[in-house]
Parts: sequence; C-alpha cells; structure tokens
Amino acid sequence: MGILLRDVRLPERGATSFWVRIRADRIDGVSSEPLAPDAGDEIVDAGGKLAISGFVNAHTHLPMVLLRGLADDVPLEEWLERHVWPVERKLSPEDVYWCTLLALAEAVRGGTVAVADMYFHTDRVAQAVEESGVRALLSYGMIARSMSEGGEKELRTTERIAATWQGAAGGRIGVAVSPHSTYTCGEDVWGAAKELAQERGLRIHTHVSESRREVATVRAQTGGSPPEYLERLGVFEVPVLAAHCVHVSPSDLDLLGRGGVAVAHCPKSNSKLGSGLAPVAAMRARGIRVALGTDGAASNNRLDMIEELRAAWLLARGPSEDPRALSAKDAVLMATEEGRVALGLPPARLQPGDAADIVLLSLDGVHTTPAREGTSTIAFASQSSDVTDVLVAGQWLMRDGRLLTIDEERVQSEVGRLLRRHTN
Amino acid sequence: MGILLRDVRLPERGATSFWVRIRADRIDGVSSEPLAPDAGDEIVDAGGKLAISGFVNAHTHLPMVLLRGLADDVPLEEWLERHVWPVERKLSPEDVYWCTLLALAEAVRGGTVAVADMYFHTDRVAQAVEESGVRALLSYGMIARSMSEGGEKELRTTERIAATWQGAAGGRIGVAVSPHSTYTCGEDVWGAAKELAQERGLRIHTHVSESRREVATVRAQTGGSPPEYLERLGVFEVPVLAAHCVHVSPSDLDLLGRGGVAVAHCPKSNSKLGSGLAPVAAMRARGIRVALGTDGAASNNRLDMIEELRAAWLLARGPSEDPRALSAKDAVLMATEEGRVALGLPPARLQPGDAADIVLLSLDGVHTTPAREGTSTIAFASQSSDVTDVLVAGQWLMRDGRLLTIDEERVQSEVGRLLRRHTN
Repeated sequence: MGILLRDVRLPERGATSFWVRIRADRIDGVSSEPLAPDAGDEIVDAGGKLAISGFVNAHTHLPMVLLRGLADDVPLEEWLERHVWPVERKLSPEDVYWCTLLALAEAVRGGTVAVADMYFHTDRVAQAVEESGVRALLSYGMIARSMSEGGEKELRTTERIAATWQGAAGGRIGVAVSPHSTYTCGEDVWGAAKELAQERGLRIHTHVSESRREVATVRAQTGGSPPEYLERLGVFEVPVLAAHCVHVSPSDLDLLGRGGVAVAHCPKSNSKLGSGLAPVAAMRARGIRVALGTDGAASNNRLDMIEELRAAWLLARGPSEDPRALSAKDAVLMATEEGRVALGLPPARLQPGDAADIVLLSLDGVHTTPAREGTSTIAFASQSSDVTDVLVAGQWLMRDGRLLTIDEERVQSEVGRLLRRHTN
Repeated sequence: MGILLRDVRLPERGATSFWVRIRADRIDGVSSEPLAPDAGDEIVDAGGKLAISGFVNAHTHLPMVLLRGLADDVPLEEWLERHVWPVERKLSPEDVYWCTLLALAEAVRGGTVAVADMYFHTDRVAQAVEESGVRALLSYGMIARSMSEGGEKELRTTERIAATWQGAAGGRIGVAVSPHSTYTCGEDVWGAAKELAQERGLRIHTHVSESRREVATVRAQTGGSPPEYLERLGVFEVPVLAAHCVHVSPSDLDLLGRGGVAVAHCPKSNSKLGSGLAPVAAMRARGIRVALGTDGAASNNRLDMIEELRAAWLLARGPSEDPRALSAKDAVLMATEEGRVALGLPPARLQPGDAADIVLLSLDGVHTTPAREGTSTIAFASQSSDVTDVLVAGQWLMRDGRLLTIDEERVQSEVGRLLRRHTN
C-alpha cells in the first residue's frame, strides 16, 4: 500500500505534469507517463499543484510561540534577560508540550517537514514531535559555567534524552548535544559535551557569534572569537550545527569551512533583534553549508519558511546591492536540501529512493499568476497559505488544508488557558 | 442605510470589543458600548477580528503582474531594457485592463484599499480601478527627451486623462502628472509637467534616485543629483510623490524635506533588483513623510502590503543593527496613514468622520496565537490570507474571503489567454 500522486508540477521541469509513486517512506517512481497503482494504493489527484521537497527549519525553539509579540522592539540581551527568561522560568513540562504542538501546527501549515529544536523539558517537546509526524533534531539547551556548577547535571539530562529519543518515532527523531553557547557554557562543559557527542555519534547544535556583545565577551574570556575558541577545544571534530554566525571574520569563516560546520542562518531574528546580517554570500563562496532557521517565534514572530527564505534573499541583495547575491534557487536550496544535510536527514530531492517528504503548493492564487517557474514562484511569490498538503516519511500530516495529526482547536484552547495563567 | 460592525478589536486598544457604525462613505461612530442600528442597516458580526485602516500601496505599476517571475535575478537596467520593455511594447489596452484587474484582485485580497499607479493605456487602468472599488492616484508615465521629441504628445495625453478621470468614481480616482524620471524626461518636459500640475492642482508622481547609475547619469547631464535638479526646476513647488529615493545624500534629504516631498519607499523591489537600501530612518528623523509601495509585481513579485511592511522593518533593523530603527507602529503607519497623506486621501484612522476604508483581519490562525497586540500582530505575524473583509468608502469589496467586485475566474482566464499569446 502506497500513494500515487497524479498531475503534479515539479520545480525547474516546466509545465509538464508528473506522476509520483510512494512506497512506505520513500519515493518509488517519478514519471511524466502514468504510473500504475498497486492494489490498495491511495490515488491523489494533485490538480497541477507544485510538488516540492518540504522545508527544513534548521534552528528554532518551538515552545517560544507562547512569547510571540512580547517586547518586539528591543535588542537581544535586554529582550532575553528582562522579557524572555522571566516567562520561561515559569513554564511547566505540560506548557512546553502544548506550545510545541501550537508551533508544529504553524510549521506544518507552512510546509515544514523537519526542525532542529533546542529548548528544555525536552521529553515533552519530543512527545509533541512524535505525535505530529514531523522529523526533528532535538536537544536540551545546556547552560553551566563549569561541570561542578551544574554542568554534570546538564550533561546527565542530555545523556538521558539521547538514550530515550535518539532514533525514536521510526527514526524521525534525532538528538543533538547543545551547549547553549560559548558565553553560557564553561570550557569543561564544552569538553564533556564534545566527548558525549563523539561517544554517541551525535551532532552538536549551538549558538555562535549572534551578537557583537557575545563576540566581545568570549574574546575577553578566552582570547579568541567563538569559532576560534570552539576550534581550540576540538569541537569541530564532531558535526556542528551553528546557529546565526552573524559576526564572523574571514578567519572565522576559514575555521567554520575547515571544520565542516553547517550554519543555520536566521535572517529575520537577526534583523528583528538588530543583531546584524550574517555574511551569507561569503559563507557560500567558501563552500560553507548554509541552512535556514526561523529561531524562536518570539524573535521572528513566525515559523514560516517561505517568509524566512524571502527574508534571506531580501537581506542578501539589498544591502550588498547585488541582485545575484542569492538567487531564487539558492534561497530555496537553503530552506530545503541544505537543511536536510545540516540535520543529518536522508535526501528528499523528489527522486526515486529519496525520502517521501513532499509538500504540495497551490499555484491557483491570483498572487501566483502567472507562475512562470516553480522555484521562482516559491522564492518570490508563494505564501504559506498556498501549502495544501504535507507528507512526511510517506505519512500525510496535512490534506487539503486540514491538519491530520494535530488537533488545532484543542491546542489553541490549551494555549489560551496557559496564557491566561502566565499573564495573571 | 449603513453598516454596523460588532465585536471588532482595534489596534492598541487592548482586548476590548468595539462597535463601528458606518454611514455612506464615512465612519459615524466607534464605541465599546453597543451602537444602535438604523432601519435597513447591515449588521456584521466580526467575531473578534481586528479592524484596521486599509493599506495604501504608494507606488506600483499594476499591469506588470503579467511579468511576474520574468528574469528574477538581474539588475535594474538590464531587467528593464532586455526583459520588461520588449514585453510592454506589445501590450494592448485590453491586456492592460485585464492585468490591472488581476493586480487589484491580489491587492484587495491583501487588504489594500488605495494605490498610486503609474503606467500607460491609463484609461483602461482607470476603468479597472473604477470597477474594483479601490481608491487610486493614477498617472500616465511620460517619457520624452524634449517637448519637440514626443513631449507635447505625452503632456496632451496626461491632460486628457486628468480631464477625464480626476475626481471620477465618486472621488475615488485622482490623477497625477508623471514625468517618468529625471533621466528619461528632458528639462522642458519637466517644466511643462510642473505647469500642468500647478494649473490643475495635481500631484507629481515620479521615480527619484532609484539606482547609482541613474544618479551618475543625471549628475553628468545636469550637474546635480536628481533632487538637486528637481529643486532647481521648481518641481517641489507642487506636491511630489517620489518613489524609491535610495541613493540620496544628506543634502538631498534636506531638499526633499524642505520641498515637502513624500517618499514612496519600495524595500522589496530595491532589494530584489540590488538597487540598494533607502535611508528610511534618516528620512523619518528629518520629518520626511515615508509611505510604502510594492513597485510593480515584476520586481517584487507581490503586491502584498503586509509583506512589504515586514520587509521595511527587516531592512531597517538588520543592516543598521538597531532594533529600534523602525518599530511595529512605524511600519504599519507607513503602510496606511503615511500613504494616505502622500496620495492626498482623506484620513482613515478608524475615528468618527474618517473615511470608511476598513480591513478586517482574522486573529484565529495558529500563526497569530497569541495575538498580544494588534499593531505588533500586523507588523510581525499576520499574513495577507488573514484578510477576510475589505470595505472602501463604505462599500464592501471583499466579504468572508470572497471578492465582490472582481470576477477572479474570468480575470485568470483572460490573463491566461493573453499570456499564451505573449509567449508564442
């Protein structure tokens, strides 16, 4: 039993209509000629919709949707210390579960099939991810000045989460080791984190050089920039997913490139908080893999990957005065395939053998008329409400605009309830 | 007979539910207490939706939706000369009519109630605007090296359009005089345009300092920057709507400020084409009125004012590293009230006596949960598909997501037909 999609358009394949056959969690065939269904196959007429590889949100903090619209016009440090952390300290595991589901409802509605999330109460984040059907690289954000000042406990938490969730949900869930950053974790914590990642074959997911203040702090404390410090600690011996990388020098870029670090570029969050512009064109010119993330909804305020990739090209082209700084194709690749490699996911290029992580987008709206070419349409014209269907690992998460795995009404009501509690 | 809206939320007025009464084309009452309907009033339960002043697109070329997705990754001059103009030369008046309707369908769906359009076959643009029910400041884009080289004819066309359309459609349509720019119109053409505007009491709508190449060309030809040249010609003696103003010096800004020029900032178009970033914060600090425009869909590729105002704060905050460079409130003002003043429209601040140009936005989506405050929600979280109802001058253009004045199916079919003709 599988799925047979008929009459889909594919990006960069012109106006031709295609058939796509899915067996279990993989694509089995793609053809402009009719493919034969097997007995029991679900046949879905896509009516000329565009089929694309689903979006990968390579850096987020899902439960932060609760903080959407809280203190919108202040810089990073003030925002964290005065507004975000006071609310987060009061969040229960149950709160985190419902907020994660709210976030995933928005993500799936926008065509996101995989996320890299860093937060706390990770068991409840994982439970929500498992139920929702998306793929995720999950981690517990560790904050500790040293192993003796809380670091031991943080590492044990990460170890337990890895033992419980790595490879769970039929392989949809992976676990990363997440020292929060070089300014919030001490040297021995970083050493132990790296060892744990090496032993278990895990990635490290962390924040790197997000603000000028962070870089100055780390330089004062360690004598080097965040990438220099991480390189000295040997952290780049394991695969690293580095969020932000806004304030990085050419020699930092050399280190990131040599270390095979994947960057999660978060253009909207970096702009909203006034952190700055990551040098995306320079990164890509050096062969650094650049994926795309929304960061948490509190600093975005969306988890919308179409909006995020649009922000990426706007911010790459405008300030540089170079309309070729980031093409439609590059922006879409960053939001899809680059993210998959950064998270360690199987490829999903809509080819036989690839993962069946497929999103259908309507091209019927007046705002996508004419839809000359698929990639251009996604990059410059589509909006998240054009997403009608989402398939992850061969399972439908959304059909015809209806979420199948998340009860939105229940989630909205639970989040409304906890919001009233947190504002009283 | 009027309209009584019940249970609307208003930006910056908290969670209170309001009643809004509309008589003819104006707001008659706004109250948190129930307002009494008159006999024959249409009573509309808004169910807690957010009511806002509709968006004003202060610079666009509506019929260019036909060119959406054409040559996406090239700079301004190459894009115009090799891709845009060859198609435009072949457009018939009938083509322009249908393309304008397609553009207006997108605009109204996104909550736009007024546009400043500069194009050609202006009678057909005006016809579509009249039918659609939006407000518009329309103009015919004049291009002529001198009065004897086509300028006379261009001015006569503008004169005829002004005589036909100024104040038409119950006052919804105004006409501007539009020399295309300082590099495409000669000195005597500018002189005659200014005189015509003065005689008829019209605004001038033009392109100013969009690209570095334009500024260099004008400086070489006239010895001054575009604003210096316009100032010398006395153009700022009439009200001017100046699109772009990307490459303007501090002394240019002094001239624009002293001249009372309204700027139509087009952040997405300027970024997509790699033209650069207009110094919005510096303009606003000098008291220059800055409205917001999408430019044509060919360089955007949307006519979506929520997306445009989001691009405005992104591009103001990221490159400047200042999260206070453009607040949520400033961005929304630019997209609404600043645009109204720039176009010469009556105010629409949702107060008694103001124009009934009201847009209802749903706050029920998972992506706007929680909706802590209306202005923040519009600036950072809403999307154009949240717009459910659009009222202009007391007339419904959209109800519950359905366009009432534009037959979208017919428009899509006509545009499809002419698209096939233009690509064969």
